[in-house]
Parts: sequence; C-alpha cells; structure tokens
Amino acid sequence: MSCSARLLIQCADQPGIVAAVTRFLFEHAANVTHLDQHSTEMTGGRFYMRVEFQLPDLEPPDARLRAAFDAQVGQPFSMHWSMIDASVRKRMVIFASRTEHTLQELLWRQARGDLAVDIRAVISNHAETEEHARRFDVPFWHIPVTPETKAEAEAQALEVIGEETDLIVLARYMQILSPALVDRFPERIINIHHSFLPAFVGADPYRQAYERGVKLIGATAHYVTSELDQGPIIEQDVARVTHRDAVDDLRAMGRDIERRVLARAVHWHVEDRVIVSGHRTVVFR
Amino acid sequence: MSCSARLLIQCADQPGIVAAVTRFLFEHAANVTHLDQHSTEMTGGRFYMRVEFQLPDLEPPDARLRAAFDAQVGQPFSMHWSMIDASVRKRMVIFASRTEHTLQELLWRQARGDLAVDIRAVISNHAETEEHARRFDVPFWHIPVTPETKAEAEAQALEVIGEETDLIVLARYMQILSPALVDRFPERIINIHHSFLPAFVGADPYRQAYERGVKLIGATAHYVTSELDQGPIIEQDVARVTHRDAVDDLRAMGRDIERRVLARAVHWHVEDRVIVSGHRTVVFR
Amino acid sequence: MSCSARLLIQCADQPGIVAAVTRFLFEHAANVTHLDQHSTEMTGGRFYMRVEFQLPDLEPPDARLRAAFDAQVGQPFSMHWSMIDASVRKRMVIFASRTEHTLQELLWRQARGDLAVDIRAVISNHAETEEHARRFDVPFWHIPVTPETKAEAEAQALEVIGEETDLIVLARYMQILSPALVDRFPERIINIHHSFLPAFVGADPYRQAYERGVKLIGATAHYVTSELDQGPIIEQDVARVTHRDAVDDLRAMGRDIERRVLARAVHWHVEDRVIVSGHRTVVFR
Amino acid sequence: MSCSARLLIQCADQPGIVAAVTRFLFEHAANVTHLDQHSTEMTGGRFYMRVEFQLPDLEPPDARLRAAFDAQVGQPFSMHWSMIDASVRKRMVIFASRTEHTLQELLWRQARGDLAVDIRAVISNHAETEEHARRFDVPFWHIPVTPETKAEAEAQALEVIGEETDLIVLARYMQILSPALVDRFPERIINIHHSFLPAFVGADPYRQAYERGVKLIGATAHYVTSELDQGPIIEQDVARVTHRDAVDDLRAMGRDIERRVLARAVHWHVEDRVIVSGHRTVVFR
Repeated sequence: MSCSARLLIQCADQPGIVAAVTRFLFEHAANVTHLDQHSTEMTGGRFYMRVEFQLPDLEPPDARLRAAFDAQVGQPFSMHWSMIDASVRKRMVIFASRTEHTLQELLWRQARGDLAVDIRAVISNHAETEEHARRFDVPFWHIPVTPETKAEAEAQALEVIGEETDLIVLARYMQILSPALVDRFPERIINIHHSFLPAFVGADPYRQAYERGVKLIGATAHYVTSELDQGPIIEQDVARVTHRDAVDDLRAMGRDIERRVLARAVHWHVEDRVIVSGHRTVVFR
Repeated sequence: MSCSARLLIQCADQPGIVAAVTRFLFEHAANVTHLDQHSTEMTGGRFYMRVEFQLPDLEPPDARLRAAFDAQVGQPFSMHWSMIDASVRKRMVIFASRTEHTLQELLWRQARGDLAVDIRAVISNHAETEEHARRFDVPFWHIPVTPETKAEAEAQALEVIGEETDLIVLARYMQILSPALVDRFPERIINIHHSFLPAFVGADPYRQAYERGVKLIGATAHYVTSELDQGPIIEQDVARVTHRDAVDDLRAMGRDIERRVLARAVHWHVEDRVIVSGHRTVVFR
Repeated sequence: MSCSARLLIQCADQPGIVAAVTRFLFEHAANVTHLDQHSTEMTGGRFYMRVEFQLPDLEPPDARLRAAFDAQVGQPFSMHWSMIDASVRKRMVIFASRTEHTLQELLWRQARGDLAVDIRAVISNHAETEEHARRFDVPFWHIPVTPETKAEAEAQALEVIGEETDLIVLARYMQILSPALVDRFPERIINIHHSFLPAFVGADPYRQAYERGVKLIGATAHYVTSELDQGPIIEQDVARVTHRDAVDDLRAMGRDIERRVLARAVHWHVEDRVIVSGHRTVVFR
Repeated sequence: MSCSARLLIQCADQPGIVAAVTRFLFEHAANVTHLDQHSTEMTGGRFYMRVEFQLPDLEPPDARLRAAFDAQVGQPFSMHWSMIDASVRKRMVIFASRTEHTLQELLWRQARGDLAVDIRAVISNHAETEEHARRFDVPFWHIPVTPETKAEAEAQALEVIGEETDLIVLARYMQILSPALVDRFPERIINIHHSFLPAFVGADPYRQAYERGVKLIGATAHYVTSELDQGPIIEQDVARVTHRDAVDDLRAMGRDIERRVLARAVHWHVEDRVIVSGHRTVVFR
C-alpha cells in the first residue's frame, strides 16, 4: 500500500507512547493506514514504532508538522524519530565487481517499477561491468582499485556519490571500503555476504561451506560497519544442498539466494522498514 | 511475553480508532505491551486490531472496565470487540480417531507447559486411543460412532464437552461432525486436514497427492464450518517430496507437517491471535 | 559435472538391468560418472534410470554404439531408451505475453552461461516484449493472436519454431495452444502456472488464492498436454504470505517463485534429468 | 521400501565399480531394489555407493556371500565395504539431561514403529528424566555426573551400554563425553547441537543467536568426535525468526527444529544411509 508519509520512532519504553503519537496524527487530520510497534521488554525496555499515514489531500509532511511533532511528542518522550515524505524517491548508488547477478537483479527490479528508487550510478572496478549497467540505461563509472590507488579511487567514488545519495549498495563488490568512507554513511550502506553469517566470515565462503560439509548454504544482507561482516543483519535466507553439490554448484545455488536476500533488504530499507538497534535490526514488514 | 489482558477488535475502518483505543487504555492506567493492527484498504476497508496490556497490579479486566470501553470506544466505532483475561486458561476438548500423532503432540506440549490450556477430555471412536491419553493423565471417553448411532454419539460427546469448553480440536478425527454440533461452536472448532487446501479435499489426500505427482505435500489447520474442508484457514505448511516417495512415505512425512501445523494453529487460537474475517483469517503473530 | 553422454531408460522392472547397462558401458570403455536409478515397487514395478558417462577421448556416442546398445540391452529388456550427446546444445523457443519476469530470467541465465541452450526465438503476442529480447540480442517475433486469427498465428509460430526445436517454453504466455500444436511436441513444451497445482487451476490464481485465504502461495512448472493445467509436474515451490498481503503483493511475491521454479524445470529438462511416467515425473537431480 | 540386505561401499574411484558390484549381485540371484552412487570428481575422485537388495526367499546375507564379495569385488577395488542384514534391528542407547523434547521425540517414534531400533536404555544425569522413559516403558539409568565423579560415571555408563550397542544418541545431553569414550564408538555417536553449525559453537547458542541478531535459527545433528561441535554433519535445518522473538521464543522454536533434525539423522543412520568421508558425510536418501 502506498502512503504519503512515514514515521519511524525509537526511544526508551514508557506508558502512553502509542496514544500520544496516534492522538497527534489524529489531531492533525492524518489518517493512519498502517502501524507497527515493538517493545523489547514488558517494562523498562526499548520501544520501536513505524507508522504509515496520509495527510489531507495527500500532502507531504512539512516543516511545521515536524516542528509540532517534535515539541508535542518527540521531545517529551526523548525520541529518535524521523518523518519521511514517501513520495520522494531515494537515491541509490551501486558498487559492483565482476559477478553481476545481484547488480542485474537490482537493475531489473528498478526498471520494471518494483523498486522505487533512482539509481544514480553503478561504480565498478571492472570495466566489463558496464554492459550490465548499459542494458538498463544506468550511468556507469569505471574506477579501478589497486592497493596503491585505493585512497584516490575512494575519493573519485565519493565524487560520484555526491551529497545527496541516500543508499549505497555493495552488490558483491569485492573491495573493502575504508573506515572513513563507511563512517560517512552510517546505516546507509548495505552489503550482501555470500554465507549465512556468522558462519564463514571472510573470503570464499562457499568453499568454506563445502569443506565443513554443511547441509544448507545461505546469504546475508547487512549494514556495513567498520568491522568486516559484523554489521547489523537485515535479512538472511538459505537453500538445501547435498553431498552431490561441488563448490561450483554451491556458488550457482548461492547466486539465487544472494539475489533475493539483497533485493528484499534493499526493498525494506527503501520503504523505511528497518530500524537499527545496536547489533540488531527491527524489520517492520 | 505474558500479559494480563488482551483486546481483539474488528470494525469498519475510519480515522482515529488506534488513537481512541490507546487513549482509553492510557487513561485507565493500562500499559500497552504489544499492539498489532491491520486495515484491508487505505480507505473504506475493514479494521482489525489486537492489543496486549497490563492493568495496574496485574489485575484482570473487570466488568466496569468493559462497560467503560464499550461506551467510550466500542459503540462509537460500532466495533465487534472482546477483552480477555489472559490469566484464565482456556478449556479444550480433543477428538481423535486411530492415528495418534497430532493428539500426542498436543498432549505433550500441554504437559510440558508450552500450551496454556486445560485439556478436559480426549474423545475417540476407538478404544485403543485411551493409552495415549492415559500416558499424559488426561480423561478419556470412548464414544463409538456408526451410521446408526451417530446422533446418539454426538449427544454423548456434547455432554462430555459441557457448557464451558472454549475450544474443540479435531486431531485427525475421521468422522464428520453434524451441522448442528458445528453451529454450536462457531470459530471454536479447529481441524487439521492432511493436504495443502484447497488441493485434495476429501478422503485419502496423500494418495491423491501421489497420483497427481505434486512435488510438495502439505497440511492445513482451519476452523470447521458446515462445508467440508472449506472453513477459514489458520495455518498451512508443506514439505518437499520426490518420485522416490511412495504413498506411505508421504503419510510419514505428512505426520510431521500435520503435528506442527495443528500445534501452531491451536497455540495462536489460545493466545487470541486469530480473527476470522469472512472466509479468511487475520493472524497476529 | 559435465559429461560427454547421457543415457535415459524406462522399462518394466526385472532383475539384472543395472548390471546389464553398466557392463555394456564398461565393455565399451565408457566411464560412468553418475548413475541414478528408481524402481516404483520392490518387484513388478517400473524401472527408470539415468546414467552420465564419458566415452574415450570424450567422443560423442555414435550410431554404432547406439545400435550395439539396442541389440545387447535395449531390446532384451524391452526398454524405452535414449542416448544423448551432451555436447550438443538444445534449441529452445520461448513464448511470452506482456509480463516479462520469467522471460527475463531465462534470457539472463542463458546469457551468463548458466543455461546451456541456444535460444532461437522469442515469440510474443505483444510488440512491447521485443525490448526484453533485444536486451539479450535474441531474435524476436511479434505474432498477434485474436480469436479469429488463432489458427493463422499458430501456423506462423510453427514456421518460426521449425523442425529442429527441442524445447518450447511458455514463459507466462497467456494464450492456450491448440491441441494440434501441443500434440506435435509431446513432453517438449514446459509451462509455468502461477499457482500450486492442483489448487487454483485457470485464470487469475493469485486472486483465487487471496480469496480462499491460503497461507502459502506457489507456482508449478509442468509439461503441457491438451488438458489445461493437468500435465505432468516437473517442479513446484511456495512462499509464505499473511493477511497483510493484498492480491498485488501476492503477484509480486509470486513472480519470484515463478522465476525460480521455471528456471529449475528448464534446467533439469535441458540436462535430461526428467522422465515422464504417466501423470507423474521422475526427476533425477 | 523394506529390503533384506544393504551394501555400503567407499573406495578410490575407477571405471567398472558399478558393473562389478551389480554383476556380483545378479550372479548371486540378488534383486537390486535400490541403488545410489556418488563420485566426487569426474576422474580420480572418491567413490561411494549404497545398494538395497533382496536375496532369494528373503534370506539374510551370510558369511559365504560376504567372503565371495570380498574376494571378487571388495579386494580387487580396495573397498571399505559392509554388507548389512536389514532384518536385524540396531540397538540404541540414549543419553539425556533435563530437557526432554528430543528424547521424547525418539521414544515416541520408536514406540509407534517409525524408527526400527531397539532402545536398550535411557541414561540421564537427572533423576526426573525417568518419567519420560517410563512413559514408553524403556529402561532408565540415573547416573549423576560431577567434575569429581566423571570418570566413574562414564565407567558406569559403559557398563549399561555394553558390547552390543550400535548407536549412541546424545539427546540434548549437556555433558561432554571423554575422548576415551568417544574413540570407542567412531561414527556411532550422534549429537544434536542447538545451532546452525559452524555458527554458535559452545554454550547457550540461542542467546548467541539472539545477540547477533540472525534472522534464522537452526539445529545440527552430527557425529561426535573428540573436537567439540566439529564432527561430520548429518543434517541441519532452520526456521525464520524476527525481532519480536526473545531468547525464550528462540528456544521454543528451536525445540521443534532440534526434534526433527535429530529424528531424521537417527533415521538415516539406522537405515545405513550415511557414509562418513573425512569432515563430511554422504547421505543417500
């Protein structure tokens, strides 16, 4: 269901929060079309909430409404909150390396209107990735990376990203971003790792999975933090494998898992369904 | 999470419902510990809501609170609503035939404290089912059924059920209840059908599944209505099968699906998570 | 694992079949790299077998080998058998209508080398489908179909298909093929139906699923026979839905199921893993 | 399908193995009712095979047949092989601690005839576990374990186990067996670990899973080796969780996963479907 605005809230739990929020919206003639809430404990825990609402004449939320909400609800409950104009498309930049399957999946979903974002650029350290971006008429930047040129390459990438990018997706990008770059986009960089984390951190996880003899393989979409493969998990999924599957079979089956796991995570982020809470995420679906 | 009370609501959608309900609870010093809500359409649809809340000193909801809610919220919004004292265990009667797996699953879950119900009786048309009930010290009634004695048998069963039974579970009970009996317990009889409905209605669904050559088999827990296998579905699940699985293998794999599907459905009903809406259910998990 | 040749066998079960086949291959210096076998009953049932083998110097199987096999093994056991040169790529034609997701999935898999077929043509009754075929440089034919021109349209399609097409895939093609056309390609036309058959045969299955209130939706890939949605099932899969999912949400989730179910079925057919047996299939994976 | 005998084979791969085995069986009038085979590489890999067969008059395999097989097939191919009389029920001993769900699942499956073993004893370090064993009339031994009495307790357990036990199952037994005991039963002790290994090795894996914020939890059945939680994996499965699930919810959902994963692994072991190969298992299903 579409909506004109969304409200995301996080604060210490206490009685009356839902009543205060819904009363505020009612008094401003907003129609709540969806509301989801979560408390970590019966008492004394943490409170999370997501509300979809329509303002009269489908107007977007303006500065006056935000100021009023902050004064009447946000500050009294010491909330972290954001009120989002749902009609504004988020701007996304995708980093990719040579394997194109997750890149292709995102480009295709966006092209057919299933993913409501503007893709501003595809950046890759491999020139041949251009053909995939061009297939969907998306601007492409080839930025090679070597140990020596890494700082320079990131500077170049930052220029492409610019000031107004809402979301960076690492679509099987095999380079590790510097902490400086990661820290600039907190909770705004999504990576797909090709294992069921925390199993098989690091390189070549399908080979690791094969050697350990697991009976299911998986993939994990998570926000990137400066610790490798340790960021808050948004989504995971698995598929069953058998002794018949060699490492390359795991890779092929894994591609399908990676595509759907990353697509779901990006979709939920774009619809403001994810709230980060320490090492964990709350995903309101 | 435990709670002292639950509120289930169903009505025509309109602005201000959540605000009115949460304000009422806040003004009566109730602490909302969980709230879930669903609207079928952006505007003009149907509204469903489930709230868990704690009253001061963990008191149960009393007649005064109910009357106040009805006057201030229930009637103004033309709600169907119920306010449930969560500390009162529901009373359950189980019907079983010869196959005992779903019966055993419910008895075991109740015995270990995972299913917060009182099992008042197990009724079976087969005497040998007694040993399963006795294993868990549950009263057993053997009520044989023949085409000639069906009315009599149901009269006898009704006496065992009595006036205060909240839930009847048909745990692979192979007899069809009369419409008269079914109509006495609307939305309070749960059946497990051993197929993924609406596929394979009727007798011997695993044989039907085998003959059609499906690649997944399933089970369905639903409320019983007077139309066979047509009641509102509460839960379904499936498992993968191959050409190697003969009809008996399907039956064996099916037993595991049936056990978990029925256990979930009963669990959700007991925690007042299911609202029936026409042919469909809303399940707040 | 690649191989140079494959052997598919179907016959009445009797002692000594595996021994006779493997002895024949051994005596012809073939190295069995994979063997799978299935008997429907302990005695007196039906026997199915698939063997992958390498001939010396990776030679393809020739007419002499086939004649020898027929004389020494095929005829003595009254087998239906085929010996396939695995190095020859199958030729595939895809029919599509307006929705492009399954078409796109097949084109993309073929382009990246995951599906070892030659796609000779995409045929559609909608001109706008051309852009999807062109994205992957595959020949496109626009053949409109109206009730009046159906016979003519099929004649035109048959010309495009030609004599040497091994496999026809209906990738959400919304037209029903005539029995005459279907009968020309027995066990060589694969359709994807957007429900978990046999539930929701016919039109708009996602709406049917929504109205019945099922808790899982599915898709089915099957060989096309002249009876609508009744052909032997190759693969099925499902995904969990809730009361929150409107019909359009089911359609969106269904697209992901359809893509992977059809891709798997085509993949298995192309690798000669499917043997049709009455209304059922044996799928050697 | 039942059978009178089973053959398990493991050796270096080379041409002609299947032919030699099936020819031997055919010449001894054995009817192959099921055959499964696996090679790890196209050439030069390792070969695994499982055959179910019927001897004339359903006789069990005798010493003469075994000697003939060894001379004609086993030794020429340097095989590790075993020929098993399928009519002899394996003898099983179960170790359990306080949580009874996996114990109960095995006892119940055995009692209803779904698990073709003799359960010779349940051993527990907790006296209250006796009631679960008694419910199914299985001999129970209470053997307390403290750091000081561990050696003595194991000696006592070994007496209960005796010389003729084929399989030991650790049904959520919370004590670590000594390497001396483990080494006495290679590939004959099955443990259920309550996580998706290799994630969350060691104590309280559901708490670890909660804190890491994973979106699926799992369980793993594996053979016990002297390295904790590192033995060859037989089976794994997972279930989806959300931010709503507290640690206790994970434990409750986990119980259902553990029950079915352990039951499957024991079932496959009992039917001689598992071949250990280094750190991995081949499971012929």
